[in-house]
This record gives sequence, C-alpha cells and structure tokens, in this order.
Amino acid sequence: MVTTEIRRDPITGRSVVIDRAPFKRKSDFDLEPPRLEDPPAACPFCEGREADAGPEILAWREGGPANVPGWSVRVVANRNPILHIEGGMEIRAEGLFETRDGLGANEVIIETPLHDQPLHVLDADHLWRVLWAWRTRLQDLKRDARFVSVAIFKNHGRAAGARLDHSHSQLVAFPIVPTALAEKVGCGSSHYQKTGRCIFCDVAAAEVADGRRLISAQNSILAFAPFASRVPFETWLMPRDHAPRFEDTADSALQAVAAAIRSVLSRIDWALERPAYNLVLHTGPLTGEADKVFHWHLEIIPRVTRYGGLEWAGGMHRNPVAPEDAAAMLRDPAK
Amino acid sequence: MVTTEIRRDPITGRSVVIDRAPFKRKSDFDLEPPRLEDPPAACPFCEGREADAGPEILAWREGGPANVPGWSVRVVANRNPILHIEGGMEIRAEGLFETRDGLGANEVIIETPLHDQPLHVLDADHLWRVLWAWRTRLQDLKRDARFVSVAIFKNHGRAAGARLDHSHSQLVAFPIVPTALAEKVGCGSSHYQKTGRCIFCDVAAAEVADGRRLISAQNSILAFAPFASRVPFETWLMPRDHAPRFEDTADSALQAVAAAIRSVLSRIDWALERPAYNLVLHTGPLTGEADKVFHWHLEIIPRVTRYGGLEWAGGMHRNPVAPEDAAAMLRDPAK
Repeated sequence: MVTTEIRRDPITGRSVVIDRAPFKRKSDFDLEPPRLEDPPAACPFCEGREADAGPEILAWREGGPANVPGWSVRVVANRNPILHIEGGMEIRAEGLFETRDGLGANEVIIETPLHDQPLHVLDADHLWRVLWAWRTRLQDLKRDARFVSVAIFKNHGRAAGARLDHSHSQLVAFPIVPTALAEKVGCGSSHYQKTGRCIFCDVAAAEVADGRRLISAQNSILAFAPFASRVPFETWLMPRDHAPRFEDTADSALQAVAAAIRSVLSRIDWALERPAYNLVLHTGPLTGEADKVFHWHLEIIPRVTRYGGLEWAGGMHRNPVAPEDAAAMLRDPAK
Repeated sequence: MVTTEIRRDPITGRSVVIDRAPFKRKSDFDLEPPRLEDPPAACPFCEGREADAGPEILAWREGGPANVPGWSVRVVANRNPILHIEGGMEIRAEGLFETRDGLGANEVIIETPLHDQPLHVLDADHLWRVLWAWRTRLQDLKRDARFVSVAIFKNHGRAAGARLDHSHSQLVAFPIVPTALAEKVGCGSSHYQKTGRCIFCDVAAAEVADGRRLISAQNSILAFAPFASRVPFETWLMPRDHAPRFEDTADSALQAVAAAIRSVLSRIDWALERPAYNLVLHTGPLTGEADKVFHWHLEIIPRVTRYGGLEWAGGMHRNPVAPEDAAAMLRDPAK
C-alpha cells in the first residue's frame, strides 16, 4: 500500500514526502534529552553574573541601574558572534569565488534571569517582554543602513544546536537578504505578479477555510501545521491580516503572539515529550522593498527526527507525521 | 577583529558564513558516538539473515544461488520505503495545495556481509563493487519511464540519521527532479547560457589552479573542500572531465572513485575522531536533459555540528572550519 505522498509547499514550491501511516513515536522519532548539563555549570546568563554576559544593549527593568540584577529580559552582544559589527561592505572576487566581510550584528536575548525556565513556562507578560525586546532591537538596527535584513531564532535543546541550557534567543542582522528569505520573497513576488495578492494571506485564508491543519484561530494570530510540513509537528504562527514586518507589530498584537507561542509550545512540549526545537522569526527585508509580497511568520520546528541523506541529496524532507494528525493533537479546544 | 566572512557558493549562489579563526575541536564540534547499539541486536543486513532483509534485486556473488550467504554486496527493497513502486503519476490540486502519490523506488545497498565494517575499511575491490551496484541499479531504473531522477545517499552514524549500524547506502528514484537537484541544474543552465561552459568544469579547473582547497588530484577524480563549504571538512569528489551522469562511468573511472572515497573517508575518520557523516551522490536527471550543464559529484558531509536556527532562518550555514584548513589536514601527500 502506498502510504507516502509528495506534497508541494504552496509558498516555496519545495517538495516534502509525508508519511500518512499512523506514526510510531518509538521508531519514527529520535528523542535526545533537551538539557546539556546537569547540574548547571557557572552560567553567564544567570542573574548576578551580568558581567560575564557583557554590557546590556537593552533590558526590561523596574528602574535601577544597568548591568546588575533586577531585569527580567536582557539583550547583550554575542561574545562569539556569527557576524561582526565592524567590517566593510565590499565584495572581493577572485574568478568564480566571491567573499565579503562577516559584517552584521549578532545579539543574544536572555529571556529570563532564572536558569531553568524554558520559554513556554514564562507567564504571558514575561513572554510579551521577550517579544518587546525583539521588536525594539529590530527597530533600532533598522536605522543602520548597512543592514538589509534580520533573522531571530532560538535553539532549544542540544538536538536543536543549543550550547547553553539557559533560555535565550539570538538576533542576526545581515548585510544581504539570506538565501531562505530571498527564496520566500522571490516566490511571493511571482505570486503577486500573477494574482495581485500576498501568497501568505492566501495560504492563511485557505488554512482557515480547510480547517484540518488549524491549531488555533481565535484571535489576530493564526497557528497552523503547514500543508507541506518538513518535520513532525512543524507549526507556523502568522498574523491573519497582511503584516510584512515584525517591527511594526502593535502592543496588543504582540500580546496575541505571546499567548499563541505559550499555548503552542506547551502543547508540543507535552505531545512530543520535551523535544528540542528551533523557533525562527522570518520578517520582511528592513528596506520595505518586499512589503507587498512578504508577511512575517514564526516557525516552530521540533527536532525529533534527524536531517539525513535524503535532505542533503534532494533538499527534500521526509516527515513521518501528517500535519493533519499533528494539528489534531495540538488543536485549541476553544477553536 | 572580524574573524568571519560570507562566501558565495559559485554553483548555487548560496551564502555561507565561514569562521577564519583557528577552530577549537572541543567547543566548535558536537561529537556523538557513531554507533547506535552495542552489542549489535539481531541485524537484518548480516550474512545468514538474508530472509530478514528481503529478496535480492542485485548481488555480487562468486556463483551460487540468490538469497543465501556468499555475497559481498547485496541490494534489496527498503521495507519501510520513502517512495513506493506502485502509485499514480497524477497531481491532485485543491486550491493552493498540490499532492501526488509517493511513487518511486527506494532500495538499500548492503555494502558488506559483516556487521562491523564501515565503508572506509573495505578494500578497494570491495568498495568498487558497492559503486558497481549503484551504477547497475541506476542503469536498470532508468528504463522505467516514470522515474526522472535518482539520488543515492549514505547515513553513517546516529547524528547523520542512520537507524542501523550495519554499513549500507540507499537509492531513491523520484518521479520529479527534487529541489536540491533542480536548484543545481537551474544554476548550471544560467552559467551555460552566459558562458557556454559547465559550471562544475569551471569550478574544477579553478580549484586545481588555486590549490588551497585541493585534497587529491592525481587521477581522473578530483577531491576538494568546496570554497563555500557548509560544514567542517565537507569534501566533494568529482570527475575532472565533464561527466553528467554516474551511470555512464566506466569501470576504470569507478576504480578511481573507489580509491578516492576510501582515502578521503579514512582521513576524515582520523581527523574528526570517528565522525558521523552523510555521503550523497548527485547525478544528472535520467532523461539526459541537463547533460550539458550538470556534472555528477559525491558530497561527503561530516556531521560534527548541528543544523540550528541560523540554518532554518537564513538557509545559511555557519562553518567553524575554513575549507583551506580542512584541505590542509586531509591533503594527499602525493599531490
């Protein structure tokens, strides 16, 4: 019996193999313990060790001086940055080979002063402050004309690439539009040229109409399992209405995002038995050049399967869990 | 000091962040034990358990009947296939959402009758037989007009997605050109339109001329660390002369490929302390439609770093080891 199907992602056009057979947690998943160390080593992100993490770029505090305890969210420069704030913009070409300086910004958002608090157990107000820090840093970095785009991501657990247990996210400002964003902007542009509409808005409307992959839809933020989900329980959060860039999100919408992240992550944590995951914010280029064709979204990517030969060979994921089944397990009872 | 640079892959145009600072094995790498189980469980790929692995599609034997001991390489159908040999070709569209049956072939090449023999310790003749099996299966599957392309890959070690320790590779025949191959064919076509030349041939010539990333170049097969290597010690093996499809490789060239795989994998195994790795064969579409613009190649992708948020967010890898440094460690003393 044919239990697999090939689905085409309506946004990127990429193919994914989805297994429609009932999934078997034991043999389909490769679960690794999310924690890296036990007991915790001296952690530079803990309250009281502010000097180890470095001077703060931004913090949420109820008054008091900077760089001492009393904060709930704190942003610092990455001490081992992916991209560096100094450096030139020029491209050096040697025949086919082009290089440029690793110019950019790489900041760490320390999401809580306490060592052992994952994102989904923070209360809604606290999670809102994390998103406020993301938005504030985006608004600030946008003023630097060298930066063209920003990505924000979180690696939770060793299998997701985390190097520290203490809950944190990272922001990277790029001097270019990186491949994954360029691909989505390109596909969005073709759809816009053909239809005059935003492909993300069209997908949101189609998911609401279909309903089988919807996880929650009570407020301005939609949560759904994408039709061509690449990994088990992949979940997207997206504003219902067209919104190209995260930095323009209003306070009230940010509250809805915080509530949706908290609710979806808690259910994934329960359903997949404390999985590692990546959480990734895709937001439109800072220049606004793609504002008609791009729509910000958050991707939650549980890491319970391995990136293997098929992914490298075909650029094609095999997903042992149909998104319809994942959504049914994560669905909001109030929907 | 800016220690990172952004390099553009000359074939795909994708960007990679390369860290030029001296790499620190302990903090830059996340090494996992390559073996899944110890002692081995009842293994369906071991000699004497032929019935468990299923009827053989192909085997290298010194005479004797099929499906009994006496083979050195054996090909069987995957019992839990990614794609299925039955199924239709039609595309079902519901608005934006397109699905087709998971039609295709998925075979397993059992590379040795012995449980505990990784590929790089097989002798050159034995490794040649593995490549002979790949080539023979490709030639056979090509006769099925439903299949448009084939990928062959190997997952070695848990971190690379292996589910069994016993050395094996997998072949997948697709009814489509999957994303990663389509991307390379597309980039190859633009280069050909601009220059009248194959981009892979141009890269091979440039790497030989430059020399800093060359690993071995004594025979018809070139081994080099790509300029925009995505992971530490990524290595490509490629015929020097234009050769679009692996199934047309002559016996003597296959010997050179076997020798190069053996030599490069042994050195990577030593340098990275028994890493997990993926090995991936990219070969031109079976139809021959891309023969002028595509050039087969083998990618060896050690899995000593994690695929994390930056990769998901940007489609951009961060590689803590410059390919020039990796090549220097792997270089053929006879070059």
